[in-house]
Order: sequence, then C-alpha cells, then structure tokens
Amino acid sequence: MDVFIEPIGRLINEFSKLPGVGKKTAQRYAYKIIGMTDADAKAFADAVIYCKQKVKYCSVCGNFTENDTCEVCKTRPSSTICVVKEPKDVIAMEKLHEFKGVYHVLHGVISPMEGIGPNDIRIKELLARIDGNVTEVIMATNPDVEGEATAMYIAKLLKPLGVNVTRLAHGIPIGGELEYTDEVTLSRALSERKSI
Amino acid sequence: MDVFIEPIGRLINEFSKLPGVGKKTAQRYAYKIIGMTDADAKAFADAVIYCKQKVKYCSVCGNFTENDTCEVCKTRPSSTICVVKEPKDVIAMEKLHEFKGVYHVLHGVISPMEGIGPNDIRIKELLARIDGNVTEVIMATNPDVEGEATAMYIAKLLKPLGVNVTRLAHGIPIGGELEYTDEVTLSRALSERKSI
Repeated sequence: MDVFIEPIGRLINEFSKLPGVGKKTAQRYAYKIIGMTDADAKAFADAVIYCKQKVKYCSVCGNFTENDTCEVCKTRPSSTICVVKEPKDVIAMEKLHEFKGVYHVLHGVISPMEGIGPNDIRIKELLARIDGNVTEVIMATNPDVEGEATAMYIAKLLKPLGVNVTRLAHGIPIGGELEYTDEVTLSRALSERKSI
Repeated sequence: MDVFIEPIGRLINEFSKLPGVGKKTAQRYAYKIIGMTDADAKAFADAVIYCKQKVKYCSVCGNFTENDTCEVCKTRPSSTICVVKEPKDVIAMEKLHEFKGVYHVLHGVISPMEGIGPNDIRIKELLARIDGNVTEVIMATNPDVEGEATAMYIAKLLKPLGVNVTRLAHGIPIGGELEYTDEVTLSRALSERKSI
C-alpha cells in the first residue's frame, strides 16, 4: 500500500476493520472523507466517539441504553420477557411495534466450539429476573445450532420455576417459495404443520 | 428510526453518508464501533480527523500530499506529464509501478451539463507547466463523453506549444470476451486495430 501517503493509508486501514469492507471499498470511503468539508469530517469522527462513549448496556436487560436502565425496562410491564442473543436483535424486534413486553439480552449463545459456556452469557441474570410477575419467557435466539441449544438449555432451567417458555415459530418465510426453501427449514415447516 | 437511541441513530446517519452505504449497512458499521474497545474506536475517529487535516493538494500537480509539493513532483523528471481527472486516478496509475513521469490532476472534467467549464478545472495550471523540458503529455482522463471532450480540448491547446500529446489506448480489456464487450468499445477496438 505504499502508493498511499500515510494519513490516507491509515484511514483505509481503519475503514477496513468494518464488517464486509475490503481495501477497495475502504479506499472509496477514505476519498469521500477527504472530499468532505472540515466540519463534516469532524461531525463524522465526533459521532463515532460520541456513540462509543454514550452507549452502555442496560443493567437489567443488557440492551443498548444511554442511562443505567433502558427505556423498555423503564416503561413496560415485565410479565413477558423476550430472550435474544444481541442488542441488535432487540432493535429487529422493536421495529415490529408488536411486542409489548421486555427483553433479556444474553450477549452471546452457548458454543462449546468457541469455548463459550452457560456462565459466559447472561443466563444467571435472566434467572434472577424470574419472580411471580413473569408469566412467559419467549426464546428468540437465532434458529441455528447454538441458538437452538441455548434456548433448550435455558428452557430446562426455567420450567421448574413454573414459567411458560415459548420459542419463535420456524417455517417457510412469508413470500418464500417451496422450491428455494432449504431442506432443514422445509422439514421443520412440515413437522410443525398446523390445522387450518 | 426511533428504535435507535440517539447516539446510535446519529452514527448510522453519518455512516450513511459514505458512498454506497444504506441504512442496513450503516447499522452494521455502528454495531461494530459499539463493539470495539474505547481505544480502537478512538483510533478510528482519530484517523478520520488526521486524514482530513493532513491531506492537502500538491501545489504543482494537484495530487494528494502531506506537504506543499508531492513526492512524485519532488523526485521525478517532469519531461512526461500524465493528465488525470482525480487524485485517485494517480493512485491507480502508481499501482502499475510503470509510469516514471509526473502527473497533473485536473480535479474534474469539462461538463456543460453540470456547468463545469474549462476555467473550473486546472487547465491553466497545466499550461503554465509546459516549458522546454516537457516532451510528452499523456491524456489519461476517463474514456467517457466528458473525459474524451476534455482530452480533445486540452490537446488543442497544447499542440501549438510543440508538445507531443498522447491518449491512453482504448480497446477490449485483457481477459475480456468479444461477446460481452459493449458496442462502443468493440467499434473502437476495430477502428484502432494494429498490424501484428
């Protein structure tokens, strides 16, 4: 990369750290920054620092928040808890504007392959939240091997506490076609068929 | 976008200003920043500011430089000048490690549609560089309508000064296939055919 002068090379290197960004794309981003006004480039850099400084995790649910407790935990009834892997999954759920309960972010899933055990994710924090008020826990971890295993593991811990544990439905995506649905999904859609 | 807390929303908005970045990609980038260590996020923001502050344009050729004059102008013979549209085109040429002359960056091309005339790009700066030492000027603007027109316009100004003006060759890209070559390129490759 000796064709780039040092400040450009350094910026390209930083942009390359973003997910899915190769050298060529990082280069385009760097040119864009160079072409910005000083004020715009500063606003860009400030937004990075500001976001990193301000965004914390909710002490109750583990979701993104600017305060100690997130807006969801502050304002919603805690009788239904939706368990997700990452804070970004909360955002995906919230975009629906349908779920009116609270969340619990595990910050990972159990993955023996990567050496992540039950004590490495926020499972005990979830158990601590289960009291007489909690009537349902929805397991909304991803439908992959780790996500399924984590959901099963947590369900086993929760059931003796007398709480209703549910899992998001699996099946053919709406608008999808049988022909292009992968076999595992199709098999799951078949075994979980419903009377109409 | 009210599902995002303000610092995340602001950062997503800034990332969306990068070329080809939509809301979804900007979101992924923002999550990556939040997941970084404080030091890494600071290094990222610093690289933006540093690049914007340090990168100037060479007073001779208009290329990116940290100083008044760029490394190319400082160290190479100025008998051959390669004329390009943008500083990034210099980088594309330099990657070849073949061209040993100097550059002249126009910072644009003549485009009546966008109201860009000959006086809006660095043409007079190019003319001022033509002295007894300059033997060849290579027009390396893009092979599109504006790039061609700009090359022709500049060539007309240079020829009376007794300088040899050349243009990068056009034709079928190496590794390309006739079937998939656009008609304009193929027609150009035919009319500029060479004896072998």
